[in-house]
Amino acid sequence: VRKSGTGMPVVGMVGGGQLARMTAAAAVGLGVTFRVLSESESESAALVTHDVTVGSHLSLPDVAAFAAKCDVITFDHEHVPGPILAELEAAGTLVRPGGGALRYTQDKLAMRETLRALGIPCPRFAAVSSAADVEAFAGGRLPVVLKAVSGGYDGKGVWICTSTAEIEDVIAHGIPLLAEEFVPFRRELAALVARSPSGQGAAYPVVQTVQVDGICREVLAPAPGLSPDVAIEAEAMALRIAAELGVTGLLAVELFETHQGGLLVNELAMRPHNSGHWTIDGACTSQFEQHLRAVLDLPLGSCAPPDGSFTVMVNLLGGTDPDIFDRYIHVMAADPAVKVHFYGKEVRNGRKIGHVTIVGGPQDDVAAVRDRARRAASYLRWGTEDGD
Amino acid sequence: VRKSGTGMPVVGMVGGGQLARMTAAAAVGLGVTFRVLSESESESAALVTHDVTVGSHLSLPDVAAFAAKCDVITFDHEHVPGPILAELEAAGTLVRPGGGALRYTQDKLAMRETLRALGIPCPRFAAVSSAADVEAFAGGRLPVVLKAVSGGYDGKGVWICTSTAEIEDVIAHGIPLLAEEFVPFRRELAALVARSPSGQGAAYPVVQTVQVDGICREVLAPAPGLSPDVAIEAEAMALRIAAELGVTGLLAVELFETHQGGLLVNELAMRPHNSGHWTIDGACTSQFEQHLRAVLDLPLGSCAPPDGSFTVMVNLLGGTDPDIFDRYIHVMAADPAVKVHFYGKEVRNGRKIGHVTIVGGPQDDVAAVRDRARRAASYLRWGTEDGD
Repeated sequence: VRKSGTGMPVVGMVGGGQLARMTAAAAVGLGVTFRVLSESESESAALVTHDVTVGSHLSLPDVAAFAAKCDVITFDHEHVPGPILAELEAAGTLVRPGGGALRYTQDKLAMRETLRALGIPCPRFAAVSSAADVEAFAGGRLPVVLKAVSGGYDGKGVWICTSTAEIEDVIAHGIPLLAEEFVPFRRELAALVARSPSGQGAAYPVVQTVQVDGICREVLAPAPGLSPDVAIEAEAMALRIAAELGVTGLLAVELFETHQGGLLVNELAMRPHNSGHWTIDGACTSQFEQHLRAVLDLPLGSCAPPDGSFTVMVNLLGGTDPDIFDRYIHVMAADPAVKVHFYGKEVRNGRKIGHVTIVGGPQDDVAAVRDRARRAASYLRWGTEDGD
Repeated sequence: VRKSGTGMPVVGMVGGGQLARMTAAAAVGLGVTFRVLSESESESAALVTHDVTVGSHLSLPDVAAFAAKCDVITFDHEHVPGPILAELEAAGTLVRPGGGALRYTQDKLAMRETLRALGIPCPRFAAVSSAADVEAFAGGRLPVVLKAVSGGYDGKGVWICTSTAEIEDVIAHGIPLLAEEFVPFRRELAALVARSPSGQGAAYPVVQTVQVDGICREVLAPAPGLSPDVAIEAEAMALRIAAELGVTGLLAVELFETHQGGLLVNELAMRPHNSGHWTIDGACTSQFEQHLRAVLDLPLGSCAPPDGSFTVMVNLLGGTDPDIFDRYIHVMAADPAVKVHFYGKEVRNGRKIGHVTIVGGPQDDVAAVRDRARRAASYLRWGTEDGD
């Protein structure tokens, strides 16, 4: 049943953040009807989506009523409680990704155990509930990484502990925790893939991500100088994880590239992901369109960038002056090839309020393009090109 | 005054067609607030725009009330009556393009006379009001072209007359007419430029357009084999026309390339234009984003395609079977690099309901890419790859 007057299917996205906002834009050309369940009328996606339902992702009645107006529902975030997902699926709603896959994003211990059982390389880990557990796990080697089993994002819920006192502080939060070995990586990579319910898979080029304080700041697509063997290994690993966990829609696999050139899985996300924002400007099919295609079980689009091109994305963080418009004009004038994407969010210091991308061609130098993108983001934030 | 809670300006577009729809998508990333004045809730743009006002572009109260909620108003079409534009401007509304420029799209005789006075090459023309006037103008050379002075589009309002009887049929309509010499052209080109109120100009690569029965069917961007001198001449001509006529926003100049390689201006449009739809996928800044930047007097974006790339666009016309969805799935599966853009319009035979684009790289052949794009559009229309 296609619940739209246009004869095209209806996708409902639970959550009104920037991922839903960018998905709304992708739905326009694709021609599918797009609805959003948003906590308020002022959320990022609610400002630009035609069909906004205000409601809570924590309320079964709200989510069920929303789902009843859609052919399939999907998610802007991973915070819908498992029991709600289970109820919806039991009632016949097409939930993509389904609760069976999403639980691995809500329970990092289950994710780690499952990946280990599949033979996917991960950092060494253990469930811990006391400082003694952590000490036993670490065996005297510090730092050690502690992670909240559920609810973490953007560096929240991850602690890199360098002393017993720090370990005790984290334990004192009283939340379920996982200890992981600290991996001294060469760099961080991300492999983004799509998988449809029919089992079709598609892989974007593997990218390098640059994190500061746990927040993604830059993405270089494709990852500069990555050996083709490692790129293929990362793509194959992500496609295999998507298939083994039953993911539908997008799966982002955050990876450590070790100094020996090996790969270890750091985190998983089952939705459009910050490491894929570059695809709006830099790939044939944006990750947002791809997610819509995948959750609708439509044939997937080409993930390819234009021949010989590369893309640099820099996240735009808010600064201390909320009136960004004059700085925006400066950036547009300074570099006509900069693509600024705003999320419609109030400016707050350190908050992700948008991103900047520049697509480079065969004649361009990655470092020079990266410098231009950084300057644009810096100017938008601070009014100077050489800020943080 | 920026009339938006996000601190970004508000653009209102009068008219709810596909141009407004695609502009709505462009506004999302740009971060400006976008509103539409649409004749109904079911128009193309009204289906995807957050802020839709239902009203008539022929009603001064409707347009004025809409304009009061916007920092600047612009247009999806050229049918707002001149007196309404004049009233709005007298009241201080920022109308872009303004009535002084738009009148040249509503009065082809004024357009021709003004271009002639500027020394811009045009087909020979004359105002005519009787068959005798037309015969005198044609001097025995048929065919002769008759055009409605106002209101024509997509081949409507243009008649290529090959006999006195046909001329008399057109005269019998009793509308103001213009006679033009029939130009036996090599091909049709289009030059698309943007001009901001501050006077900044930007030119897209000149494209070849292929018309069938007065309807644009294909666009090849850039125009294959066009000499750089002619390309520069066309771009300079379009920029000059934009400046001389005081156009703000986009200006599309439809051109004949004669067998001698000369250029003649056929038509003008002061809005995003079918000949520029390729820019969504094939240029750094889409024409829709560029129009928003220009009418807001923001610095213009780069018009450049990725290095070495070209784009083919084929318009998607409706066929006789309205249920397009299964054919859409076929097309997505057959060619993952095809970009289909739907307008949310009911399928009717011969109606423009979307367009298809494919971006080719330095290794690709224009004819082969054009064939792929045609096959996709044909399959969507007829369920066969080799239809019309």
